[in-house]
Amino acid sequence: MTGAAALRALHHGRAPGDPLVLPGPWDAAAARAFAAAGFPALATPSAGVAASLGYRDGETPADEMFAAVARITRAVDVPVTADVEDGYGLAPGELVERLLEAGAVGCNLEDSDRATGGLKDPERHADWLAEVRAAAGDSLVINARVDVFVRGDATKRGDATATGDASGRGGAGADPERLAEEAIARGRRYAAAGADCVYPIAAPPPLLPRLAADLGTPLNALAKPDGPSPRELGELGATRITFGPGLFRQALAAVEDIAERLRQA
Amino acid sequence: MTGAAALRALHHGRAPGDPLVLPGPWDAAAARAFAAAGFPALATPSAGVAASLGYRDGETPADEMFAAVARITRAVDVPVTADVEDGYGLAPGELVERLLEAGAVGCNLEDSDRATGGLKDPERHADWLAEVRAAAGDSLVINARVDVFVRGDATKRGDATATGDASGRGGAGADPERLAEEAIARGRRYAAAGADCVYPIAAPPPLLPRLAADLGTPLNALAKPDGPSPRELGELGATRITFGPGLFRQALAAVEDIAERLRQA
Repeated sequence: MTGAAALRALHHGRAPGDPLVLPGPWDAAAARAFAAAGFPALATPSAGVAASLGYRDGETPADEMFAAVARITRAVDVPVTADVEDGYGLAPGELVERLLEAGAVGCNLEDSDRATGGLKDPERHADWLAEVRAAAGDSLVINARVDVFVRGDATKRGDATATGDASGRGGAGADPERLAEEAIARGRRYAAAGADCVYPIAAPPPLLPRLAADLGTPLNALAKPDGPSPRELGELGATRITFGPGLFRQALAAVEDIAERLRQA
Repeated sequence: MTGAAALRALHHGRAPGDPLVLPGPWDAAAARAFAAAGFPALATPSAGVAASLGYRDGETPADEMFAAVARITRAVDVPVTADVEDGYGLAPGELVERLLEAGAVGCNLEDSDRATGGLKDPERHADWLAEVRAAAGDSLVINARVDVFVRGDATKRGDATATGDASGRGGAGADPERLAEEAIARGRRYAAAGADCVYPIAAPPPLLPRLAADLGTPLNALAKPDGPSPRELGELGATRITFGPGLFRQALAAVEDIAERLRQA
């Protein structure tokens, strides 16, 4: 079984409360630590990798991100999926080629529009995902990130969109019900375009049962330090659990402690 | 004052018990954490950078080491000195150029001979250091690492060298007195060749007063978790304290804890 097939298989047939937990390494040493702890696969977080390289999230040059992913995949034997943000404007064929060259067997692709700070048009984004799928064949597990809930938080705008609204902005003032509908409509489009898994990042946990039921695909949930545990998220319907930059931030807090203790010594 | 002049000045006029403490960042995020804690300069550790990149110590390709150093120097405003091991076989002029391009204002250069596992001929190594100094002018603070004490530990050979023995091997069975003499002889040569500081790595702390007195230059000591504190090493005569990969290993232990807790959750 190839790495992609192995990673894909891990998304299926999971018991409730036993989701696929994918820690997010930001460098080769963290990857080795997570693999040594027994996790069957890893998922690089763009924000953690960015911080380790000295960039703000979303500002890592594509070449540096792929180089970092390659260092991580070389360091471990388990399958690695890579958060490659919005695909860096690469043509689908080139994006797939760069991911495979870097040793990744999966990727996160998000529907945020970095140029506008809003969301991409879902139909056009689905068309693009279909092109990525066509270029990748079975060689990549595509995790389609749906940014309805984060763009809502980030923009604090009231003009929440309904499905197909080309302006594509969520909003903090938006009705969670409408955000859920929008996330489901987007996720279904992306799954129909060939995504293996849908990732409505920062979806409120109480919405997970409905998202899981209505999406009908593997569902990725973000675990937060102050939120439900991976197991609890699994019981709510999540198939796959990732942490965003959460584990990197825990590690960075440890480094800050080391620095502070040294300074006081 | 340039970065190199600032770093050089930090090596002089220090009170006993107040050595220059240089934490060793392995990536940009660690560099920012150490700088934020108030350290006036940083010193990259080759082993920590190597592990972060997925290499064993001593096996990092030169290009990757310089790229890592550049990411670290870009991330902070304080002067950064870089451990560039044995100089990667680069000609002195190119070595200096690569260091300056990477934003380093100092470097560690060691007298181990990686090909033989022993020590380099001290006279030829001093000549090489003089060429590096000539190429660098005042633009780099050169920390000449003297590997007499580690090669002794590493090779476990009984054929300890006297000064000028071209085979250049120390030995675990070697008389500490003879190792100290060898380290002092080498350090003096390297200082005469233009080194700003001498670093007899892993010198037993009781030898530091003699090393400081007989070398007559700033003295770098390695602080170990189970050894004297930086302050105590300073009281013994050390001017500058570094940690090798020690801080990286502390941070990695924290990552291993995070992984283990997540695995148990």
